[in-house]
Amino acid sequence: MARPALVTLTTDFGLDDHFVGTMKGVMLNINPSLSFVDICHRIQSYDLLDGALSIALSYTYFPPETIHLVIVDPGVGSARRPIVAASPRYKFVAPDNGVLSLIYEREANLEVRHATSERYFLHPVSNTFHGRDIFAPLAGWLSAGTELDQLGGVITDYIKLSVPKPERASEGQVRGVILKVDKFGNLITNVTPEDVPELFTGSSPPFRITVQEYTVTRIYSSYSMGKASELFAILGSSGYLEVCRNLGSAADALQATRGTEIKIKVG
Amino acid sequence: MARPALVTLTTDFGLDDHFVGTMKGVMLNINPSLSFVDICHRIQSYDLLDGALSIALSYTYFPPETIHLVIVDPGVGSARRPIVAASPRYKFVAPDNGVLSLIYEREANLEVRHATSERYFLHPVSNTFHGRDIFAPLAGWLSAGTELDQLGGVITDYIKLSVPKPERASEGQVRGVILKVDKFGNLITNVTPEDVPELFTGSSPPFRITVQEYTVTRIYSSYSMGKASELFAILGSSGYLEVCRNLGSAADALQATRGTEIKIKVG
Amino acid sequence: MARPALVTLTTDFGLDDHFVGTMKGVMLNINPSLSFVDICHRIQSYDLLDGALSIALSYTYFPPETIHLVIVDPGVGSARRPIVAASPRYKFVAPDNGVLSLIYEREANLEVRHATSERYFLHPVSNTFHGRDIFAPLAGWLSAGTELDQLGGVITDYIKLSVPKPERASEGQVRGVILKVDKFGNLITNVTPEDVPELFTGSSPPFRITVQEYTVTRIYSSYSMGKASELFAILGSSGYLEVCRNLGSAADALQATRGTEIKIKVG
Repeated sequence: MARPALVTLTTDFGLDDHFVGTMKGVMLNINPSLSFVDICHRIQSYDLLDGALSIALSYTYFPPETIHLVIVDPGVGSARRPIVAASPRYKFVAPDNGVLSLIYEREANLEVRHATSERYFLHPVSNTFHGRDIFAPLAGWLSAGTELDQLGGVITDYIKLSVPKPERASEGQVRGVILKVDKFGNLITNVTPEDVPELFTGSSPPFRITVQEYTVTRIYSSYSMGKASELFAILGSSGYLEVCRNLGSAADALQATRGTEIKIKVG
Repeated sequence: MARPALVTLTTDFGLDDHFVGTMKGVMLNINPSLSFVDICHRIQSYDLLDGALSIALSYTYFPPETIHLVIVDPGVGSARRPIVAASPRYKFVAPDNGVLSLIYEREANLEVRHATSERYFLHPVSNTFHGRDIFAPLAGWLSAGTELDQLGGVITDYIKLSVPKPERASEGQVRGVILKVDKFGNLITNVTPEDVPELFTGSSPPFRITVQEYTVTRIYSSYSMGKASELFAILGSSGYLEVCRNLGSAADALQATRGTEIKIKVG
Repeated sequence: MARPALVTLTTDFGLDDHFVGTMKGVMLNINPSLSFVDICHRIQSYDLLDGALSIALSYTYFPPETIHLVIVDPGVGSARRPIVAASPRYKFVAPDNGVLSLIYEREANLEVRHATSERYFLHPVSNTFHGRDIFAPLAGWLSAGTELDQLGGVITDYIKLSVPKPERASEGQVRGVILKVDKFGNLITNVTPEDVPELFTGSSPPFRITVQEYTVTRIYSSYSMGKASELFAILGSSGYLEVCRNLGSAADALQATRGTEIKIKVG
């Protein structure tokens, strides 16, 4: 049996307006047997890095052939290009503003095209809602079997954001940043085991993680090992170091947020 | 292949309760092959005009035969009637309280019925959750092929809200109102190009749009044309004049909200 | 025609992260023809009773064979067991922490199993996101036809929370508690007609319901019978006594919330 076509949606459109529902209507009008999964519609408004991170943390869990629609589009109506990217496993539809930057890093053999074929757009094309008029139709037509080369030519000068990487300031000292605060108030940093391998060995040496003048000295393997109101570190499910509090919000306790710096000193 | 039956949902039930999920369960129990699209569940509580506007801005983008379920129901449990409306393209299920008023204005050849056949309701019918006990079952049975005339007789005295229209106060002066603030803080007014055609000509004459003592004198064709913190007007994707700020919230900047008056003076 | 497999989701994962979407991807990877209904993702963080109540109020409205996935999991990564429960009508996948307590009370012939077969998990299994790595895969495999006894053995020592019951303090006096505040600010208590039958007779005797020093003396059959700003009681759609205000929030008016005590005195 053919796998039914699947489109995921990641946007900063929120849930208070008709925007997401309308885009799904547009896609179903093109391909009525399409299914949808909402990844997140509460990306911080206009925040390309937040969008890039959300799709990067989730896209690999979907079946092959899934089409990932990612719309954070501060430049809607300007000259920024609509793009369609395809790897052997997935397709992506997005504005060319860097919101796919982490996909470019992670997905091998990715071909990126500038979608120029206006006959696949919904006319009249507005200047303020390309989600409805350009991106949803592109995803709809892709799901219905339209070939990539029908949509536009390959480009290589697509925009890549520089995603902040941890810096090794001096021997045993690393500076990172908080990428995201999750629903539970966990602080997801940009630090991975590759960046500070010594922190993640079975018997890690003494270390200090400093966030907002608060120092964390323990790394646990699960949230529930934390004592009441204790702040600790953990290797999160996304592969990043997190600063956490069991049954409470580390973000509230530390008054930390996206962009807050963290320092790690090992030994 | 038959188009799978599709029901859209527009309600003020929010996302913090089980209400929407339960209604979908009721519909799937009647028609297990049904698909859903959520248009919006965060209509302002009890706000019929907000509900009317949300469905009006989105319903035309869905495939023919779509059933639109619209529930904003301050009179639940009272004598207000459940209705089913059908045009050649779409069906609508809603309480008869005016929440479909903009559909009545826009959809030609609409037949409205008072759904009186209690055997299509879910029993026992509660007095507080007709979404579950009356409206969802009606949508479910419609999707499963139940004929309209089985549900109840045609009525013509259904309730129409007077949706606020812009008024031409004097030569070159129009008074309108803000219908909605979207997720990005854009102020969607009730003014269309029909109301002030001179504003939307290629070379529009000098004009002043006044909101909360602030005056806007520019109309742009895309958000990204706005300079930092500049307030400007735009013809939005919904066909209404909007007051906006690029990468920021006009609603916050102007302390404006649904119901705030705007004045337009051209020339 | 075979009924398509259906999984409902009830979690405290919120809508600001990729968590729910990722879990759906995992399930679709196992069973691409699966459908989903979200019951609620805004369960209060870590609040087992809130989760237990949400699934209890909704699960019976779904078609037979529905799989209900319920994840409120403060002990993620600890020794708490993943369980799969099955009655003749439904299946449930959840952590063994009491979040299914109301299901245990209501569903006859329920068999509960400790899911120990790690080959049905997603590897590597993280310590912080068992929704993705354990619970979603279990629901996916169940939906694809995996037999219950393949997942693990039957247990009888699963955890049951004591859900607060109203207490009859003295003749004609009952103490209850607010279980939940809904989106409209209605206060859903734990009092049912069984607890105070005299309150729900056709001609109920005089009574006083006290919440936060405010006294309610009327019970209505629908919200719309309430006068402006009047507080009154109602038998809600969930079968519990509610304290309400027509077109307004009783929770705001009374500064009441989950856990607030109520007293009922009849006669």
